[in-house]
Amino acid sequence: MRGLWLEDKKLDYRDNIPMAIPTAGEALIRVIQSGICQTDIEMVKGYYPFTGVIGHEFVGIVEESQDPSWLGKRVCGEINVSCGQCELCRRALYIHCTQRTVLGIWERNGSFAEYLSLPTRNLHVVPDNVYDDQAVFAEPLAAAVGIAEQVSIRPTDRVVVIGSGKLGNMIAQSLVLSGADMLVIGNQRSQLELLERRGIRTGFQDAIQDHRADVVVECTGNPAGFELACKAVRPRGTIVMKSTFKGQTQVNFSPLVVDEVSLIGSRSGPIGAALRLLAQGVVDVHPLIETRLPLSRALEAFELAQQPGKMKIILQMTGY
Amino acid sequence: MRGLWLEDKKLDYRDNIPMAIPTAGEALIRVIQSGICQTDIEMVKGYYPFTGVIGHEFVGIVEESQDPSWLGKRVCGEINVSCGQCELCRRALYIHCTQRTVLGIWERNGSFAEYLSLPTRNLHVVPDNVYDDQAVFAEPLAAAVGIAEQVSIRPTDRVVVIGSGKLGNMIAQSLVLSGADMLVIGNQRSQLELLERRGIRTGFQDAIQDHRADVVVECTGNPAGFELACKAVRPRGTIVMKSTFKGQTQVNFSPLVVDEVSLIGSRSGPIGAALRLLAQGVVDVHPLIETRLPLSRALEAFELAQQPGKMKIILQMTGY
Repeated sequence: MRGLWLEDKKLDYRDNIPMAIPTAGEALIRVIQSGICQTDIEMVKGYYPFTGVIGHEFVGIVEESQDPSWLGKRVCGEINVSCGQCELCRRALYIHCTQRTVLGIWERNGSFAEYLSLPTRNLHVVPDNVYDDQAVFAEPLAAAVGIAEQVSIRPTDRVVVIGSGKLGNMIAQSLVLSGADMLVIGNQRSQLELLERRGIRTGFQDAIQDHRADVVVECTGNPAGFELACKAVRPRGTIVMKSTFKGQTQVNFSPLVVDEVSLIGSRSGPIGAALRLLAQGVVDVHPLIETRLPLSRALEAFELAQQPGKMKIILQMTGY
Repeated sequence: MRGLWLEDKKLDYRDNIPMAIPTAGEALIRVIQSGICQTDIEMVKGYYPFTGVIGHEFVGIVEESQDPSWLGKRVCGEINVSCGQCELCRRALYIHCTQRTVLGIWERNGSFAEYLSLPTRNLHVVPDNVYDDQAVFAEPLAAAVGIAEQVSIRPTDRVVVIGSGKLGNMIAQSLVLSGADMLVIGNQRSQLELLERRGIRTGFQDAIQDHRADVVVECTGNPAGFELACKAVRPRGTIVMKSTFKGQTQVNFSPLVVDEVSLIGSRSGPIGAALRLLAQGVVDVHPLIETRLPLSRALEAFELAQQPGKMKIILQMTGY
């Protein structure tokens, strides 16, 4: 099949990738389209030692399954495939399963190809009123929604989101549904305007009031964002850390201890909940699409995705 | 009055310190005895720019109060004096009051003197069955008990305490009362033996199982402890940070985000709860006393307290 192959930090468009073959309990899914994520870009830089098809944000159609009720269904999928047996799985911490494979990230080919396979237990049917262009955001939107699995956001909270890119935008749109007083900090006026149009208050970093925010979400992808978060958070407040980047950050822990601040690492979240928000029409992802390109132009798409300030690039597997 | 005066990082024993004068709502307390804390040692090194009487762990007798019901009472005291008016006070986060003074630490003379003053609302009567030698531990024990105000410790949790000094010992003794499976990591056999005698499992750092602990409490006072904590904590687990020290720590946040770990800064806690545990006899602080010296030998006491592995040095204000 056709797809995008990563090997030794080199990305190749190939037409001879072995066809995805579902094992017991897995479905074969024909990928309709798939979004390029910052993690994909980091992987090309060698963030994980992965060889194979990358990509993990997708919407597709089930073409094969031992359970016929899945056939023909339009689906999104949880990307972590867990063993169900280890101590973490027995505590329902499936995404942290020590034996896990992860779609397009770890030991499992991903979605930048014509076909992929995933266990049916990982799949979620896309509601009929959710378009493909929305469904492809289910996985990153889940990562935004997932914050509320670890941190309770109260309607009276002051929430500051630091970072106004794709993830920051979806985090702001989903957390503001709590009724909280939201401020998004960014450095690109065009990104902030997208949020202002949704009635969400934004500003440059000088808009931060020192030590007033109950919850700060840091999703800039760089260490400077963490410093701003420390400045914004109130005593006994919470900083949610969404940024993953290589290397060390210099932290002065002492004020965080004195102020009894909580730092919460947050990775991914529930795709079912993300699809429900999309079906309700309360999170608008259309303005986050930069452009779409066919799979055959994937290398060009990756070049584009790495330019600063670019929003979501979608690879379309069929229809071109 | 006699006392220990800090000025320009120099500690002086003086007999001409102006007498403590209680303001409205405050009581005058004759200090019986007072413990030397790591924070006192850090203050002498310039941790805070403080001039005055240091010391904040004390037991004493109320000698003056507008409310006569306090007269003659043996008391311990909350060390943070809050304004009651600011936004943090209105949220009951009194210890974080932006206008606060802190006994012997910030804008308020402390307990290494014959007398101190504190608002009566900060005072707790010491139960009759709690000796002075126990009551003087109420403040540091409160800092241990206070962990449970931010983190719920479940009876089925695996808890690892990294650091077996005075604070680590009290943290272990108080958190183990939850019924949790406790392991204390230290590097001095004598300190570990104190805990083993209380039925608490201990070990050197090679006893840590990688990524198995639900809750890790880091109280070593140095950056190496944080690294061990990251090694011990399980995905979605919690690291409680008790250590305050000057300077930066190098942190690789990425695995903490991927594993969705929580880092919780924790400073102080409820003295009433600490006194209740002491009254119940379920926390034993006697073995934590290294020695006691009269106030007049305070400088010698500070020398001693800075030697590695020394336990609590108590300054006695009277009776010598």
